[in-house]
Amino acid sequence: MEFSSKLLENAVSEMSQLPGIGKRTALRLVLHMLKQPASRTQLLADALVKMRTEVKFCKSCHNISDVDLCEICSNKSRATDTICVVEDVRDVMAIENTSSFKGIYHVLGGKISPMDGVGPHDLKIDSLINKVKQGEVKELIFALSSTMEGDTTNFYIYKQIQEYNVLTSTIARGISVGDELEYADEITLGRSIVNRIPFESSLKS
Amino acid sequence: MEFSSKLLENAVSEMSQLPGIGKRTALRLVLHMLKQPASRTQLLADALVKMRTEVKFCKSCHNISDVDLCEICSNKSRATDTICVVEDVRDVMAIENTSSFKGIYHVLGGKISPMDGVGPHDLKIDSLINKVKQGEVKELIFALSSTMEGDTTNFYIYKQIQEYNVLTSTIARGISVGDELEYADEITLGRSIVNRIPFESSLKS
Repeated sequence: MEFSSKLLENAVSEMSQLPGIGKRTALRLVLHMLKQPASRTQLLADALVKMRTEVKFCKSCHNISDVDLCEICSNKSRATDTICVVEDVRDVMAIENTSSFKGIYHVLGGKISPMDGVGPHDLKIDSLINKVKQGEVKELIFALSSTMEGDTTNFYIYKQIQEYNVLTSTIARGISVGDELEYADEITLGRSIVNRIPFESSLKS
Repeated sequence: MEFSSKLLENAVSEMSQLPGIGKRTALRLVLHMLKQPASRTQLLADALVKMRTEVKFCKSCHNISDVDLCEICSNKSRATDTICVVEDVRDVMAIENTSSFKGIYHVLGGKISPMDGVGPHDLKIDSLINKVKQGEVKELIFALSSTMEGDTTNFYIYKQIQEYNVLTSTIARGISVGDELEYADEITLGRSIVNRIPFESSLKS
């Protein structure tokens, strides 16, 4: 791509560093900014820089927060002995949206993935295990995505806390509500049969 | 979407103002920035603001440029009496990539679109007509997209310059090179038959 302006080229090149944004999309976005007032671009730039430099992480669950202890961790009505282990902030938001979990979270910040050079010590695993060691935890719910890396991370944590008296569970895998059986993949369908639940308890939810 | 941080929410909200970027995509992009060094976000922000505030437009063809007269307009080897009328910068880049045009461009900055509140005076049409009036132009090539708005804009300009001695042409519409006839739409296929070209001239290109 040949640009008629270095400034334009530079803006497109920086924009296309973002994941999923190619050069063409970046150019479309940058040209859109040119049609908008300059103040809009300034607002965007300020919001990004301010967020990047000032954002904090909750000292307990490592979720993104504007204060030292996030709203969920500091909420007295939540069960602090039930911890849902998730990969990142988006998972917290997704589970919070369901309004079906009243415990607290622990945000690992990723999954163990040797292929990408991410080991256990690059994640917030130690602080989770410390919480367990201090006897603060009754149940750990693993809610990582169901991939090789997710399973590895679950198992790594499980091994570390095995000697302590903690319940562990993983979120249920099965056929999505409203889905047709014939379109479900074999592994999911197989697991949903093996891990079937009493009909009476399905009536409750 | 419930955010755990105002800074995060603000950054996502600004990002999702861009066309084609929804809240979810914006969140993914912003979380990606959080995993990268803060200097990367600063570079992006600076590049966007610098581009938005400092970019210039060529005083002759209105293409984006770092100088008053763009590289194409100031290139002595190009035919300044043959003007290709395009909608925006991307079209200039696309045609330049083909290396098949040796004239200069005129960037309108959009198409006449009453539905979107864009009239002839919101576009760089007057300066094009002035060039024609001054007898500087031998041929105008309309290279707007083949939509109702594109056709309206072509026709509006055509009407204004009819009394002057200027050749006008539009780029050829037809079956794309390498395409199968059976998958072409009827209008394109129909036009490609009506506007057929001598076989000998097809051998040259």
